[in-house]
Amino acid sequence: MLKLGVILDSGSHVAAWRHPDVPADAAWSFAHAVNLAQIAERGLFDMAFFADSLATRSMADLASASLAEPSKHLEPMLLLAGIAAVTKHIGLVSTATTTYYEPYHLARFFATLDHISNGRAGWNLVTSQNSNEAGNFGQPQHPPREDRYRRAREFAHAVLGLWDSWEDDAFVYDKAGGRYFDPVKLQMLNHHGEEFAIRGPLNVPRSPQGWPVVTQAGSSEEGKALGAETADIIFTAQNDLATAVAFADDVKGRLAAFGRDRSSLKVLPGIVPYVGASRAEAKVKQNRLDALIEPALGLSVLSALIGNVDLSGHDLDGPLPELPPSNNSQSRQALFVAAARRDNLTIRQLYQRACTANGHRTIVGTPKDIADDLEKWHRAGAADGFVLIPAWLPGGLEDFIEQVVPILQKRGLFRTAYEGSTLRENLGLPRPAFRQHQDQ
Amino acid sequence: MLKLGVILDSGSHVAAWRHPDVPADAAWSFAHAVNLAQIAERGLFDMAFFADSLATRSMADLASASLAEPSKHLEPMLLLAGIAAVTKHIGLVSTATTTYYEPYHLARFFATLDHISNGRAGWNLVTSQNSNEAGNFGQPQHPPREDRYRRAREFAHAVLGLWDSWEDDAFVYDKAGGRYFDPVKLQMLNHHGEEFAIRGPLNVPRSPQGWPVVTQAGSSEEGKALGAETADIIFTAQNDLATAVAFADDVKGRLAAFGRDRSSLKVLPGIVPYVGASRAEAKVKQNRLDALIEPALGLSVLSALIGNVDLSGHDLDGPLPELPPSNNSQSRQALFVAAARRDNLTIRQLYQRACTANGHRTIVGTPKDIADDLEKWHRAGAADGFVLIPAWLPGGLEDFIEQVVPILQKRGLFRTAYEGSTLRENLGLPRPAFRQHQDQ
Repeated sequence: MLKLGVILDSGSHVAAWRHPDVPADAAWSFAHAVNLAQIAERGLFDMAFFADSLATRSMADLASASLAEPSKHLEPMLLLAGIAAVTKHIGLVSTATTTYYEPYHLARFFATLDHISNGRAGWNLVTSQNSNEAGNFGQPQHPPREDRYRRAREFAHAVLGLWDSWEDDAFVYDKAGGRYFDPVKLQMLNHHGEEFAIRGPLNVPRSPQGWPVVTQAGSSEEGKALGAETADIIFTAQNDLATAVAFADDVKGRLAAFGRDRSSLKVLPGIVPYVGASRAEAKVKQNRLDALIEPALGLSVLSALIGNVDLSGHDLDGPLPELPPSNNSQSRQALFVAAARRDNLTIRQLYQRACTANGHRTIVGTPKDIADDLEKWHRAGAADGFVLIPAWLPGGLEDFIEQVVPILQKRGLFRTAYEGSTLRENLGLPRPAFRQHQDQ
Repeated sequence: MLKLGVILDSGSHVAAWRHPDVPADAAWSFAHAVNLAQIAERGLFDMAFFADSLATRSMADLASASLAEPSKHLEPMLLLAGIAAVTKHIGLVSTATTTYYEPYHLARFFATLDHISNGRAGWNLVTSQNSNEAGNFGQPQHPPREDRYRRAREFAHAVLGLWDSWEDDAFVYDKAGGRYFDPVKLQMLNHHGEEFAIRGPLNVPRSPQGWPVVTQAGSSEEGKALGAETADIIFTAQNDLATAVAFADDVKGRLAAFGRDRSSLKVLPGIVPYVGASRAEAKVKQNRLDALIEPALGLSVLSALIGNVDLSGHDLDGPLPELPPSNNSQSRQALFVAAARRDNLTIRQLYQRACTANGHRTIVGTPKDIADDLEKWHRAGAADGFVLIPAWLPGGLEDFIEQVVPILQKRGLFRTAYEGSTLRENLGLPRPAFRQHQDQ
C-alpha cells in the first residue's frame, strides 16, 4: 500500500499565490492550513507536512524578492498543534532544523505535539539550507555541511534519548498512596558530547508513539548516512526512475549496519501532479501557472537552488553555464544541472522547473496517467509512497484526491480507511521500545 | 473594570492531582487544558495563562520528587495553539524564558500564536528561576540574576524589533501585477548587542495586535525596571494590601521615565480562592487539600522556594531558621520569610502555604467575602485585576465563576460580555504603532 503525504502552503509553485483559486494571503492563514489538512484527511492521507525556514527568502535584491511570498507559512509546530485540535487521523509533520534549535526544545515540542494529537506527530529532521538563517542566530556565516551533519547526528541521538526519559508506565497516579511516579522508571540523559551537554530528564512523558516519527530529506552522503541511522521516512527529490530505484536501494542497504530491517524505512519521493481530464487540459493548468512567473523572480529562485550563482548576465533562452560547487545543498544543485543537461533546457525552462517545486518531479497527465506512473515507481522499488507537493492549493490536492486516489484504491494500492490511530500505525511502522541509555 | 486571568494546570496546590475531582494525569492532558480554557471563556475571563519551566522539578531526591507531578503541563505555546483552534475570545498567554531561548524563535512563536488566535496572544517574559534548566542547555550553572536580566532586556528589545519587521500594510497581494509586498514597508533589524546579533526580518507579518501582549512577573529591582520599560501586565505575588499598593505605585511610577502612561500597565496580583457557601465550608475545601501533602514533599517544595535550603533537620512544628541569600528568586524568598515571621508560622504551616500556590495570596470565604476582598484591593489601587491560581482545577475555577463572578458583575466591576476581539481590546490597552528602528 502506498503512503501519501502532502506539503501544506499556498502551493509549491512560486506564483501559486497569484492563482485565482488560491487565497493571496495563504501563507499567513491558519484557516487555509486547517482547510488543507482536513481535505487531506478526507482523502485518507497519511500525513500533512510543513517545510520550514528560520528566515525569509533573501532580501538582498528587494525588487525580485517583493514578487514572491517572503516565507511560505507561519511557525509550523504551532500550526500543527492548532490543526491537531480540529483533525483526528492525519499525521502532522514539521521540519525543524538541528542547526539553530536546541535538542531539549525540539524533543519537548514534538513529544508535546504527539500528546496533543494522540500519536500523530512527526519531526522532519534537517540541517539548515537557507544561509539567511545564520544572520538571525548570531552566526557570521552559514556553517559548512560537514559541521551541520556532525551536529545533526549528535542532536538526533540527544532527542531520541530525551524521548526515553520516562518508561511508558512510569506514571502510577496513585492518588490514595500519594505516589505520582515510579522513580525506577525514570532515567536521566546525562549526555556529554562535542556539541551538547544535556542532563535531562525531559519534562514530558513518553509520548503515544514512543518516539514521534522521524523524517529526513538529505540526499547527500552525510544525509543518507544519518537517514539510515535514525529516520523512519526519507523524503527525496527524484526525477529519474533508475536513479530513484538506486537511491532507495542505497539507503535501505545501509539499514542493516544499524541493526534495522528494510521495511523500517519508507522512501517517499516528492511529486508535483497536474491532473486534467485530458493531457492537454493538465498541460493548460501547468502553463497557466508558469506564465505567472516574473523573469526577475524566476532567476532569483533558480540562483538560490544552485548555490547563489548569479545568472542575470546570461541569455534566458540559452543554455545553463558551468557552475562553481555549492555549500548549501550539494544534491539539489547536482539534480538541477543534470536535468538541464539531460533535457537540454534553457535557463528560462530551468527556472520554470525550479519555480514549481524546488526540483521535485512534475507529472502532467490524466488521472490514469498519474496512477500508472505512481504504480510503476512503486512496483520498481523506487517509492513506498509519495509526498505531494501541489503546485497550487487547495486545487492541486483536491484534483488528486478526487481523481487519482479512487484509481489507486481500485487497484488495491491505497487504503479505503485509516488502519490505525497513530501515524506509525498508518505507516506500518512499529512503536519503538523504550531504550535504556548507555553510559556516555 | 477588573481584568481576570487564570493559570491552567491541575491546580496550584502540590497535592491537587490527588483531589477526587482532578484528572490524575491533568498535567499531560490536552483535553483537560481545553476544558479549562473553555470554562474560563464562558466566565468571560481576559486570559488563560501557562507558567512554564524547561526542566522537571528537582530529581536530586527521588523519594520526595516521586510524590508530585514532575512538571505541570506539556509545552505551553503548542498547547495554546491547540486551544486557539477551539476558543474564540479568551487571551492565550504563555511563559517563555529569555534565559534559554533565542529572540528569533520566541518572536516567531508569539507572532504566530497571535495570527492563529486572531489577536489573543500574550508572552510572559521571564528569566529562568528553575536552576535545573541550566543542565538541559549546556550551562554548568544557573546564571546570576544580574546576567539574566541584562540578557532579558536585550532580548525584549530584539523581540519587539522583530515584531516590527513589516508595517501593517506591507503586504499588497497584487495578483494582477505580480507584486506581493511593498519593499519600503520592510525593515531589517540589524541588531548587534552584547548578547545577540540578529539581522531579521521576522518571517511572519506584523500580527493582529501589532505586538502580542507582554506580561512579566519579576518583583525584584531588576524585574520592576524591565517591567516598567516593556510590560503591558505585571503579574505579582502580594499578600499584604499596603505592600501591594506600594508595589503598584512603584512600578506605575516608573512608567513616565519611558514615556508611558500609568494606564498602559495593568498590575494583576495572584490569588488562590477557596469559595464556600459558608466560611467553614470554604475552610474544609482548603483543609482537605492540605491534608494530602506528604511531609517529605512539603519540605522539598518549601526548600525550592527559599533558595534550596535544606530544612529536613529542623522540627516541622517549630519556627523557620535564619536563611542564606538566594540566587534563584530573591523576591519570593523574602516574601516567604516575611510571612513566616509576621504570622508566626511553623515550618509545616509554611510548607502548606508554599504548597498552595508558590506564595500567592490565599482567600478563604464565601462568595461575598471574596468579592469584597477583590473590590477592596482594586479600589485601594493594589490591583487592576487578578490572576486566579486555583488550588485545584477545574473545581477551583468553576466555584469562582459560578459564585463570585456574578457578584462582581452586579457591582459593575466585571464585564457581562467581551468588549473587543483581541486581548489588547479586552484589556483596554492600545494597539502599539509600528516603530522605525533606530540605527544600533
